Amino acid sequence: MAASGCAARPNNGTRKGFVTEPIAYLNGRIIPASELSLPVYDAGVVMGVTVSEMVRTFRHRPFRLDDHLDRLLHSLKHARIDIDVGKDELGKVSHDLVEHNARPLDTEDDLGLVIFVTAGPVPTYRRMAGWPAQAMPAVCIHTFPLAFDLYAAKMKTGAHLITPSIRQVPAASYDPQMKCRSRMHYYLAQREAQAVEPDATALLLDLNGNVTETNTANFLMVKDGTIFSPRVAEILPGISRETVFQLADRMQIPFEERKIPLSDALTADEAFLSSTPYCLMPVTRMNGATIGNGVPGPIYRRLMETWSSQVGLDIEKQIEG
Amino acid sequence: MAASGCAARPNNGTRKGFVTEPIAYLNGRIIPASELSLPVYDAGVVMGVTVSEMVRTFRHRPFRLDDHLDRLLHSLKHARIDIDVGKDELGKVSHDLVEHNARPLDTEDDLGLVIFVTAGPVPTYRRMAGWPAQAMPAVCIHTFPLAFDLYAAKMKTGAHLITPSIRQVPAASYDPQMKCRSRMHYYLAQREAQAVEPDATALLLDLNGNVTETNTANFLMVKDGTIFSPRVAEILPGISRETVFQLADRMQIPFEERKIPLSDALTADEAFLSSTPYCLMPVTRMNGATIGNGVPGPIYRRLMETWSSQVGLDIEKQIEG
Amino acid sequence: MAASGCAARPNNGTRKGFVTEPIAYLNGRIIPASELSLPVYDAGVVMGVTVSEMVRTFRHRPFRLDDHLDRLLHSLKHARIDIDVGKDELGKVSHDLVEHNARPLDTEDDLGLVIFVTAGPVPTYRRMAGWPAQAMPAVCIHTFPLAFDLYAAKMKTGAHLITPSIRQVPAASYDPQMKCRSRMHYYLAQREAQAVEPDATALLLDLNGNVTETNTANFLMVKDGTIFSPRVAEILPGISRETVFQLADRMQIPFEERKIPLSDALTADEAFLSSTPYCLMPVTRMNGATIGNGVPGPIYRRLMETWSSQVGLDIEKQIEG
Amino acid sequence: MAASGCAARPNNGTRKGFVTEPIAYLNGRIIPASELSLPVYDAGVVMGVTVSEMVRTFRHRPFRLDDHLDRLLHSLKHARIDIDVGKDELGKVSHDLVEHNARPLDTEDDLGLVIFVTAGPVPTYRRMAGWPAQAMPAVCIHTFPLAFDLYAAKMKTGAHLITPSIRQVPAASYDPQMKCRSRMHYYLAQREAQAVEPDATALLLDLNGNVTETNTANFLMVKDGTIFSPRVAEILPGISRETVFQLADRMQIPFEERKIPLSDALTADEAFLSSTPYCLMPVTRMNGATIGNGVPGPIYRRLMETWSSQVGLDIEKQIEG
Amino acid sequence: MAASGCAARPNNGTRKGFVTEPIAYLNGRIIPASELSLPVYDAGVVMGVTVSEMVRTFRHRPFRLDDHLDRLLHSLKHARIDIDVGKDELGKVSHDLVEHNARPLDTEDDLGLVIFVTAGPVPTYRRMAGWPAQAMPAVCIHTFPLAFDLYAAKMKTGAHLITPSIRQVPAASYDPQMKCRSRMHYYLAQREAQAVEPDATALLLDLNGNVTETNTANFLMVKDGTIFSPRVAEILPGISRETVFQLADRMQIPFEERKIPLSDALTADEAFLSSTPYCLMPVTRMNGATIGNGVPGPIYRRLMETWSSQVGLDIEKQIEG
Amino acid sequence: MAASGCAARPNNGTRKGFVTEPIAYLNGRIIPASELSLPVYDAGVVMGVTVSEMVRTFRHRPFRLDDHLDRLLHSLKHARIDIDVGKDELGKVSHDLVEHNARPLDTEDDLGLVIFVTAGPVPTYRRMAGWPAQAMPAVCIHTFPLAFDLYAAKMKTGAHLITPSIRQVPAASYDPQMKCRSRMHYYLAQREAQAVEPDATALLLDLNGNVTETNTANFLMVKDGTIFSPRVAEILPGISRETVFQLADRMQIPFEERKIPLSDALTADEAFLSSTPYCLMPVTRMNGATIGNGVPGPIYRRLMETWSSQVGLDIEKQIEG
Repeated sequence: MAASGCAARPNNGTRKGFVTEPIAYLNGRIIPASELSLPVYDAGVVMGVTVSEMVRTFRHRPFRLDDHLDRLLHSLKHARIDIDVGKDELGKVSHDLVEHNARPLDTEDDLGLVIFVTAGPVPTYRRMAGWPAQAMPAVCIHTFPLAFDLYAAKMKTGAHLITPSIRQVPAASYDPQMKCRSRMHYYLAQREAQAVEPDATALLLDLNGNVTETNTANFLMVKDGTIFSPRVAEILPGISRETVFQLADRMQIPFEERKIPLSDALTADEAFLSSTPYCLMPVTRMNGATIGNGVPGPIYRRLMETWSSQVGLDIEKQIEG
Repeated sequence: MAASGCAARPNNGTRKGFVTEPIAYLNGRIIPASELSLPVYDAGVVMGVTVSEMVRTFRHRPFRLDDHLDRLLHSLKHARIDIDVGKDELGKVSHDLVEHNARPLDTEDDLGLVIFVTAGPVPTYRRMAGWPAQAMPAVCIHTFPLAFDLYAAKMKTGAHLITPSIRQVPAASYDPQMKCRSRMHYYLAQREAQAVEPDATALLLDLNGNVTETNTANFLMVKDGTIFSPRVAEILPGISRETVFQLADRMQIPFEERKIPLSDALTADEAFLSSTPYCLMPVTRMNGATIGNGVPGPIYRRLMETWSSQVGLDIEKQIEG
Repeated sequence: MAASGCAARPNNGTRKGFVTEPIAYLNGRIIPASELSLPVYDAGVVMGVTVSEMVRTFRHRPFRLDDHLDRLLHSLKHARIDIDVGKDELGKVSHDLVEHNARPLDTEDDLGLVIFVTAGPVPTYRRMAGWPAQAMPAVCIHTFPLAFDLYAAKMKTGAHLITPSIRQVPAASYDPQMKCRSRMHYYLAQREAQAVEPDATALLLDLNGNVTETNTANFLMVKDGTIFSPRVAEILPGISRETVFQLADRMQIPFEERKIPLSDALTADEAFLSSTPYCLMPVTRMNGATIGNGVPGPIYRRLMETWSSQVGLDIEKQIEG
Repeated sequence: MAASGCAARPNNGTRKGFVTEPIAYLNGRIIPASELSLPVYDAGVVMGVTVSEMVRTFRHRPFRLDDHLDRLLHSLKHARIDIDVGKDELGKVSHDLVEHNARPLDTEDDLGLVIFVTAGPVPTYRRMAGWPAQAMPAVCIHTFPLAFDLYAAKMKTGAHLITPSIRQVPAASYDPQMKCRSRMHYYLAQREAQAVEPDATALLLDLNGNVTETNTANFLMVKDGTIFSPRVAEILPGISRETVFQLADRMQIPFEERKIPLSDALTADEAFLSSTPYCLMPVTRMNGATIGNGVPGPIYRRLMETWSSQVGLDIEKQIEG
Repeated sequence: MAASGCAARPNNGTRKGFVTEPIAYLNGRIIPASELSLPVYDAGVVMGVTVSEMVRTFRHRPFRLDDHLDRLLHSLKHARIDIDVGKDELGKVSHDLVEHNARPLDTEDDLGLVIFVTAGPVPTYRRMAGWPAQAMPAVCIHTFPLAFDLYAAKMKTGAHLITPSIRQVPAASYDPQMKCRSRMHYYLAQREAQAVEPDATALLLDLNGNVTETNTANFLMVKDGTIFSPRVAEILPGISRETVFQLADRMQIPFEERKIPLSDALTADEAFLSSTPYCLMPVTRMNGATIGNGVPGPIYRRLMETWSSQVGLDIEKQIEG
Repeated sequence: MAASGCAARPNNGTRKGFVTEPIAYLNGRIIPASELSLPVYDAGVVMGVTVSEMVRTFRHRPFRLDDHLDRLLHSLKHARIDIDVGKDELGKVSHDLVEHNARPLDTEDDLGLVIFVTAGPVPTYRRMAGWPAQAMPAVCIHTFPLAFDLYAAKMKTGAHLITPSIRQVPAASYDPQMKCRSRMHYYLAQREAQAVEPDATALLLDLNGNVTETNTANFLMVKDGTIFSPRVAEILPGISRETVFQLADRMQIPFEERKIPLSDALTADEAFLSSTPYCLMPVTRMNGATIGNGVPGPIYRRLMETWSSQVGLDIEKQIEG
C-alpha cells in the first residue's frame, strides 16, 4: 500500500529503540508509536471520517480480535471506504504489535489495541505542502497500556448516569451500528453531564427519549431477572455487550432487546455498562435516583465473576488494583 | 501555551527552508506546513471534536477574517472548549501566515487559510507513548493555495444537486450553527450522491424533508425576485451567505429566511450555492429536474459581478482560469 | 347493480367481435375491453378513490385469485366503500374473463387481471351531463397481456434501487395495507429516481428513514441466511411477498419482519423485489452501492426455482423470453 | 397533440346536438360533455396522477381564470408532467367552453369549469386493447352547472367542522401546494367525520396537530380582529383564499399566516371556509364546540358583501336561492 | 405518620355514626368518609401530583388487591414519592375499610376501593393558614358503592369509541405506565368526543396515530382469533387487562402485544374495553364505523363468562341489573 | 351558585375569628382560609382538571388582576368548563379577600391571590358519601402571604437551570397556553433536576429540544441586545412576561419571539425568568455552563429597576429582605 501522505518514517530495521520502544503500524509501515500522527489534510482530521475498533488484551492476549475485525469491515462497508489491506493482514499486524508492545508490561497490566481507517486526504487541500502523490485511506494500528485508574473508583461505587440534553445522532444521519469517530455529540453530552456533576457519565437518549448508550459503553439493565438491552439497530453492537449476551445464555439468564423509555431504566432493579477496557461497570444512580439498592447488583456480580474465570483473571481486581 | 503533545518541532529560527517553504502555526509554534500533523490520541483524531474556520484571500489579503474569528469563538463556546489564545493573537498569526505563504504565489492565485481547535489529548490514551505532560486543546493555523480547478467546470454548467437519503444531524445532537468537524454524515451524503451521478453535489435535507446545506456550502434560491435561505438556526451561518445578504441589501434584492420544503426548491426560478473558495456557484439541476432555464440565472450573475467588483477581481474568471 | 354512469354499452350477446375481442366487466355488464373507461365525474378520476387488485395467470390460470379477492374486500372495508357484488360473483366473472381473453394468447404469454372499485360519482358534479339516475360505486374487471419486455433486462442484471426524497404516505393519512390508487407519491418517487438514472427503480423510505416498498413491489433482503421484510403494518401485504414467505417456510429459510433502516439494506448480503407480474426480481445496486457481489444472489435463485416448479413454468425464462 | 388513447370521438362539425348540448375538450378535440371519459389504463385512473383546477363563473364569466392557469402550470412543474398545450390555448378553450355551455343556463345559475391533466397511459398496460400509438398526457377541460343546493343550508347555519383521525399527507410525500387528485385521505377524512355526524365537514390536521384544510376548502379564522390562515407551505394556496387576502387588504383587516394548533382554532372568535363554488362559508361549530356566538361572524359578513359587490352578484343569495 | 395538613378529624372511637356510616383513611387516621377532603395547598390539588389505584370487590371481597398495591408502589417509584406506610399496612387498612363499608350494602352491590398518594403540601404556600408543622405526602384510602347504572346501557349495545384530536401524553413527559392523576388530556378527550356524540367514549391515539387507551379503560381487539393489545410501554398496564391475558392463556386464545395503527382497529373483527368497575365492555362502533357485526362478539362473550364463573357472579347481570 | 359538594361551612357572620383570620371563597361562600379544602371526588383531586391563576399584590394591591381574569376565562374556554360566576364577581371577591387578608400584614409583605376552578364532582363516585345534590364546577379564591425567602438566595446568585429528560407536554395533548393543574411533568422535571443539583431549577424542553419554560416561570434570554422569548403558542403566556414585553417596548429594547434551540440559550449573553411572585430572576448558569459573565446581566437590571419604580417598591430588596 502506498503512502497516504501521513508523517510516517521509513521502517528502518536497524533503527535503534525498536527493541524496547512501542511500535505502531501506519499505511504498511512499522514506526515508533510516539511518532504516530495524521496530517491535517486527512479526512480523519478534517471531517471525522474514520472508522475504528478498540480491542483489549487479557493476560497480554487480544480478546475477540476476530469479532472486532469483522465489525471493522462492516463499518468500512457502511462508510463506503475501500482498503487494500485484508482482514488477515490486519489480524497479523495486530498480533505482532501486541506481542512486541506487551513485552515491557507488568503482568497485571494489559493493552488497548486500536485499529482505525480514515477516508484519506481531502481533495480541497490538494495543493497543500506534503500532499501525497497518491491519495488513499489511512490505515493505522497502535496500542497503549490501559489506564485502569480511570475506572477504579466507579467499579466500587457504581457509575452515576445522567441523561444530558444532547441526543444520539439518528440513523438517518449515520448509523449507530457503524463505529465511527464523528462523535462531537458524545463529547458535548459528556461535557454537559460533568459540568453539573463532575463524576457523572452521560447516557444519551434518542430523539424520542429512549435509552441508547454512553459515549464509550453499552447500557444494560435488569428487571425481574431479565437483562434488557436497547435494540441493536439503535446502538453500537458492542463486543462486550455480545459477550454479556453469551455469558447470560450460558448462565440461563434471559436477555431481551427492546426499546427502553428512560422511565423504565430509572425504575430498573439493576443496571450496568459494558465496554472494552473495563468489561462491565455497575450503575448505581441515574439522574439522581438510586438504582435498585444503590450498590452493584447480583446479576452484575455473577456476570463479572463468570467473565473473569473465563479469561483467567480477576477483572475487578485488575481495574481497582 | 504549552504543547498538547502534537508532533511539532521547535521553531528554530536558523532552520533553512523557512524563507520559501510555507509555514504553519501549532500550539504557539511556527513550523513548516509540511510537518503539520496531529497525534492519534488527540480528540480531533479520536472523536472529531474540532471546531474550525476556512478563510480565503482575495488578491492575497484575507477576506472578512474578523467575522470568521468571531464565529470560531462562538463555536468554541458551543463546544465548551476554552483556549488561552486570544482573538487578537489568532488574527495576527493568520495575517503573518498569509503574508509569508502568499509570497511565492502567482497573482491569479489565492490562499485558503484554515484555523482549527481540537479538544486536545483524550484521557483514555494517557499511558500512550508521546502523551504530553500537560493536556491542552490543540490550536492550529495553516494555509494552502486554493484548488480552483475543482470548481471550474461547475461554474460554467452549474451544479447538479442531489438530495441523498442521509439527513442533516439535528440540533438536538449538535447545533449546525457550530462549525465542527464531526462530519461523517456530509461524507456519506456526498458519497451516496456521487455513486449515482459522479458530478453531483449532495444537498442534505433535515429530518422533516426541508432543505439545509451541502457539505461545504449554503443553499440559496430565488422565487419571484426574492432570495430565500433556510433559517439560520438550521444551517451553518456562512460568511459567504452573509456577504450575499449584504450585497442583496445594497442591490435592493429582497432576502428572506424560511423553512424550504424540497418541492419549493425544485420549482425555484434560480438557485445557487455560497462557499468560501468559490463565493457563489450556480445550481442548474436538482434531483434530475432543471432549475429555471437550466443556465446560471440573472440574480446569480448580478451578485457575482457586484462581489467581484467589491474585491477588485473577476471571481468567475479566476476560478475558471 | 345499476349503472354508475360509466360509458358502458349494453351487453348485447349477438354483438359481433365478442368472439375474438377481449372483454371486460363494468357495473354488471360485459363490454369490449377497448371501450372500457370511466366518466370524469367518477371519484376514481376526481379523487383517486379507488381500491384495486392485480392478479396474474400462470399458464392461463389465475394465481391465488382467492387471496387477492380477500384483500380487495379488506381494502373496501378500509375505504368504507360498500358494493353489492359478492366475492363469489367477482371470482366467477374473473374466471370468465380470463378464460375468454386468454384464448387468443400464445402459450408463453400470460394475462394480468385487474379488479378495481371506485367510490362512484362525486356529488359536486351532479348537474353535469351524463350524471346517472343513481350514484353507485363503479366495479370493474379487465385483463391485459403481461408486458414481460418491461422487466426482461432487469431480471438479468438486477434492479438498481434509488431512495428518492419522496417518502411513503404515513398510515395516519392512509393505511399502506389498503391497496388504493391515490399514488401520486409513487409516481413522483419514480420520476425523481429516473431523472437521475433512467434505469433506476424508486424505493420509498418512510418518514423516519426506514425502507418500505417500491411503487409496484415489496422489498426483501437477506442477511446471514435470513430473509428480512419491513413490518406488514407499514407496507402493502403483497400476495407475491406472501408466496415468498410460504416458499421460505417450506425451504426452511428463516423469514423475519422488522423495521429496516436504509443502512441495513445497503449492507445486505442479497436483496430482491416481489411483485405480481414478474414474481421476483433481483436487486444488485442500491443508491449506487453494490449489493452483495453485484449479481443475483443464491436465495433469490432458489426461491425463483421453487416458485417456477410450483407453477410448472420457468418464470425467469418466460420474462426474459 | 396526438390522442392519448382516450375514448374521444372525432370532432365532427356536422354532428347534431352540438348546438344545445354541453361540450368538452379532450386532447385537442371538442366532444359532447356526456361522452367525456378516461380509459382505465390512464394514470389518472390507475394512480390518481392528475393535476387539476376548478374555476367558477360569476354571471357566466370565469373568475380569475388566469390565476388558476398559473397554478395549474405550477402543479405540472411539481408533478414533472410536460404538456404541449400552452397557457394561451388552455385559456382560449376555457372561454369557448364557458361561452357555449352557459348559453342554456338561467341567469341565476353559474358554471364550474374544470381543467385537468393526467400523466397519460401507464406502460404496464401497454398490450391492452385500445392502447394508443403514442402515449401522452391527457388534457381535459369541461364544465358543469354549479350545484348550489349542496351548500345552501350551511350558508345559513354555518358549517360544523370535525377533525378526523385522518391526517394531511405531509409535504415529504407530496406537496400540498400542488393541486392533485390523489385524495384518498380527503375522502376517508370526510367519510369518518360524516359517519359520526352526517352534516359535518372534515378539517384535516397535519401530523403535528396543526390545522390545514378541508377536502375542498381553505380554513380561515379571526382572533382579536385579525384573520389568520395556516402557512401557505402547508396548504393548497387557494384562489378564493387569495381573494380574501386581497379583500382584507383593501378593507384594512390584518391578515396573518401562521401555524395554527387546533386549540387556537377551537377558541377563535370567528371562522370560515373559502372555496371556489361558494366563495366563503361560515363555520359555527368545531368538534362540538361553538365558535364565537355560534352564528356567522361580522368579518365573514363584511368579506362576503364586499366580494359580492365586486362581482356584481349577491353570492349568498345565489347559493341559498 | 404525621398529619400533612389535611382536614382530618381525630379518630374518636366513641364518636357516633361510625357503626353505620362509611369510613375512610387519611394519613394514619380513620375518619367518616363524608369528611374526606384535601387542603388546597396540597400537590394533589395544586399540581395533580397524585398516584392512585382503584380496586373493586366481587361479592364484597377485594379483587387482586395485592397486584394493585404492587402497581401503586411502582407508580410511587416513578413519581419519586416516598411514603412511610408499607404495603402490608395499606393492604390491612384496605381490607378493614371494605369490611366495614360493605356491611350495609345489598348483596348485588359491590364497592370501589380507592388508594391514592399525593406529593403533599407545596412549599410556595407555606405561609398559608393551616399549613402543617411537617409537610409529608398525603396517603388516603376510601370506598364508594360502584355506580353500575353508568355502564348498564353500553354493556348491551356496546360502546361507540371516537378518537378525538387530543393525543395521549408521550412517555417523554410522563410515563403512561404510572397511574397518575394529571389527566387533563383525558378530560378534554372525553369532552370533545361527547360534544359530537353524547354517548361516545374517547379513545386516545398516541402522537403517531396508534391506539392507546380510553380515559378509564384499556383497549383490546380481536383479529382472526387473536386478541391484540397496544404495547405495555405505551399504556397503563391495567389489572383487568392482565386478567384478560390470564383468562386468554387458560382458554388458549392467543394474546399479542403490538403497535396498533387506528386503521387496524377500525377493521377489527371484535373489540372491547377492560376496566375495573365493569371488567369488560364490548365495542361495537368506532368513529362511526361498525366493528364486526355491530354486536358484542364471541370472544368477548367467552371471556366474560369465564371471568364471571371465576368470581362466582354474573358480571353482566350485576351491571345491567 | 349551588354547592358542588365541597367541604365548605356556612358563612356564619357571627362566627368569631373572621375579623383577624384570613378568609377564602368557595362556591359562593366566604369561609376561614384554614378550612378550605376539596372533597376527594372532585375532578380537581381525581383528574387534575383545574384551571387557575396566581396574582400577586404590590403594596397590598393586586397587580394586573384584570389580565389574570381574562386569561382564566380563556383557560375555561379551552377546558370547556362553564361557570355561572362572572368576571366582575370574581374580581370583586378577589379585591375583598385581598383587602381583608392583607390587613394584618407588614408593609414589606405582600399577598399571593389564587383563583381556581375545577370541573367539579366526577360521576364515577356519585354513590359516595357526601356527594352533592347538584354537581357543579368548584370555584375557589384564596390568598397567602408570599414566601419571599424561597427566592431570596437566587435573586443574588442567579438561578442554575438544568434541562431534565422530562419534556413539555405537547399542545396535541393539552395546550400550554391554558394554565391548568395537570402538572405531573413539571413536578417530575423539578425532582429530576434537584436530585442531581439541589439548587437547580428545571427548564423543560419541548419534544424537539427547544426551550419552553420552567414549572413556574417563563424563560427569556438576551443576545446582541435583543430579548428573545419562545413563541407564545408553545408556552404559558405569562402576565409577568407580558409586563417585560411592555417594559421593553417603553425602554426601546427589541423583543422577539422565536423557536429557541437549547444551544442558542446556552450561548446567550444573558438570561432570566419571569414569574408572578418574584417578577424577574436572573439566570447565571445552564446545564453547568456559565451564562454571560455568570452574574445578573445589565438588561435584567434595567428591567427590574423600571418595574420597581413602576410599582413603587424595590422588588429585589423586598424579596431579599
